[in-house]
Amino acid sequence: MEETRFDYKKLQTFTATVLEAIGHSPEDALLASNVLITADLRGVDSHGVARLRGYINLWKAQRMNPKPHIRIEHETPSTATIDGDQGLGLVVAPKAMNIAIEKARNVGTGWVAINNSNHFGIAGYHAMMALEHDMIGFAFTNATPTTAPTFSKQRMLGTNPIAVAFPTATQAPFIADFSTTTAAVGKLEILQRKNLQTPTGWIQDKDGNETQDAYGLKHGGALLPLGSDREHSSHKGYCLGAIVDIMSAVLSGANYGPWVPPFLAFMEPSQNQVGKGIGHFVGAMRIDAFRPADEFKKHMDNWITTFRNCTPVSQSEPVQIPGDYERECTENRKKEGIPLLPIVIQDLQEIGKMFSVEF
Amino acid sequence: MEETRFDYKKLQTFTATVLEAIGHSPEDALLASNVLITADLRGVDSHGVARLRGYINLWKAQRMNPKPHIRIEHETPSTATIDGDQGLGLVVAPKAMNIAIEKARNVGTGWVAINNSNHFGIAGYHAMMALEHDMIGFAFTNATPTTAPTFSKQRMLGTNPIAVAFPTATQAPFIADFSTTTAAVGKLEILQRKNLQTPTGWIQDKDGNETQDAYGLKHGGALLPLGSDREHSSHKGYCLGAIVDIMSAVLSGANYGPWVPPFLAFMEPSQNQVGKGIGHFVGAMRIDAFRPADEFKKHMDNWITTFRNCTPVSQSEPVQIPGDYERECTENRKKEGIPLLPIVIQDLQEIGKMFSVEF
Repeated sequence: MEETRFDYKKLQTFTATVLEAIGHSPEDALLASNVLITADLRGVDSHGVARLRGYINLWKAQRMNPKPHIRIEHETPSTATIDGDQGLGLVVAPKAMNIAIEKARNVGTGWVAINNSNHFGIAGYHAMMALEHDMIGFAFTNATPTTAPTFSKQRMLGTNPIAVAFPTATQAPFIADFSTTTAAVGKLEILQRKNLQTPTGWIQDKDGNETQDAYGLKHGGALLPLGSDREHSSHKGYCLGAIVDIMSAVLSGANYGPWVPPFLAFMEPSQNQVGKGIGHFVGAMRIDAFRPADEFKKHMDNWITTFRNCTPVSQSEPVQIPGDYERECTENRKKEGIPLLPIVIQDLQEIGKMFSVEF
Repeated sequence: MEETRFDYKKLQTFTATVLEAIGHSPEDALLASNVLITADLRGVDSHGVARLRGYINLWKAQRMNPKPHIRIEHETPSTATIDGDQGLGLVVAPKAMNIAIEKARNVGTGWVAINNSNHFGIAGYHAMMALEHDMIGFAFTNATPTTAPTFSKQRMLGTNPIAVAFPTATQAPFIADFSTTTAAVGKLEILQRKNLQTPTGWIQDKDGNETQDAYGLKHGGALLPLGSDREHSSHKGYCLGAIVDIMSAVLSGANYGPWVPPFLAFMEPSQNQVGKGIGHFVGAMRIDAFRPADEFKKHMDNWITTFRNCTPVSQSEPVQIPGDYERECTENRKKEGIPLLPIVIQDLQEIGKMFSVEF
């Protein structure tokens, strides 16, 4: 399938215009479209404009509020819990992160638990917001139940990502952003398009047996926690996914575990909800609450160059620093454009027609 | 090899007496021995009294100070950086955790980065200290370089554990405590004693090739990050180990990456140290800084019973909650005694003679 490249600024304008058309303020539409385009620029195609249809469907199903009144429910000098009023996570999470940054400025660190939200795009976007303030950024979220705990065949957790961003002096920043499953859903989609099987250890079938079916989720199977099986410590991936779920939802008052409302609008949220919407958790730590920022950043540079130059197994595959791939991708795509598949282009054209916005 | 069981209180008294004999105050000796015995009770045999010899060797090599003057180098309302003055991590980390708890009491959360410390035993001990205060506890540490980043054959990181403890109402607390490698060193030791090979994906040889040699570390190989290989997302395990290293050491001013001084006293710390000793990072979050503690704990109970009762693949292997195994082990060992191998007993007897303490 031939991909066509699109200028990222034009894609962002289109996305923002559509988000305004469904009721967002110009500011919120700009913010949300920026989160989506950042995903496309960083090469996380599954979390970019290809998801626009999903957000629109949530709005149609009246599960997403384009004019949220985001409200602080509780706070202390270093913490807050906020109700996202069913807004897009793309809007709610950056606003929560601003609160965390402000609290970190005042008392050293700031931590915000968020309930009643929706899918927040790439976790890395929110964590990276801390960097320009010489702070460490953190972002977690729970997500549509797709993943079985070790020894289970039931989908109990989402891909529950962890993002952490550390500032640097002259090196590019260290930006980790990864799901706590062996493979994220986007990785399966790539294989589906190519009509390929998955490696073993990514997914199990509905009975909990090994499978390499890239459509395994559609067939009732489940993703596996990082580690894949007990012998390779999938219980650690399960722990990580659980920690993210509890921090994001049990702490904030959102739905957790199997109650997390699915991103797909045609899948009904479960009855007897245990909280409000989906949950996120974001945080910021001021570097100079621990040591002078210049010292830390100089040592981060040293950490990065030391790891980048450590002995590789093969000269053709040097050791990478978290964020390397996404940065190179961003540089390339800002110049060359964002590649979209025909199916995504067609979808965006249809969305354009729906709201009389030219794609 | 037949194991013999020993009463945990007597083992603790012995351990505390030895630690006093090398110069610790009675209070510090009691605290450190409590951390070690807690590891033995929880079934983490590699981190219990079997390590006593290692700590004594560090003391003999003048790399451990039994009378540390633990000092706050810098602080804000929610943070502190402390210099452990080359004390035992077993003593320094609980004191740091008390500071974190006090700060959380005042401003919602407390975070303490620690430099100039030594091995701190099981991370879970320090995280669990938060529970009785209705707080979430966190503990990380870096450790002896044993682990190769994805694509490398060089040992750059330790097993760098993560511990998180969540309080509950009537259920036993959720206590995750795990290394960020596929297998921890203790797991290799168990196989060595049984003369068995490791599963694939635990370790690589000195050239970065797959090996199942349980003595692979001694033969110049390296542990693999959680995920084992790139196809199974070892880059995520590498990210986790890196995050723990940076939080514990780049933030605190301790040694990081390949510079971390090895626990084994006969291995010289590298020249050109980049910081002081090894580093830890601990934290505490007051639950009611986010929502009423009773609400949170009631939902934690629900989380735990929901996950415990989710459909297992096999009825003979039910889904576990982090901390289950260690709690059952503790109950058993408090009654039946702590099983020690002949080689450990002999070692403790020799230590006893050295300090005229009866074992």
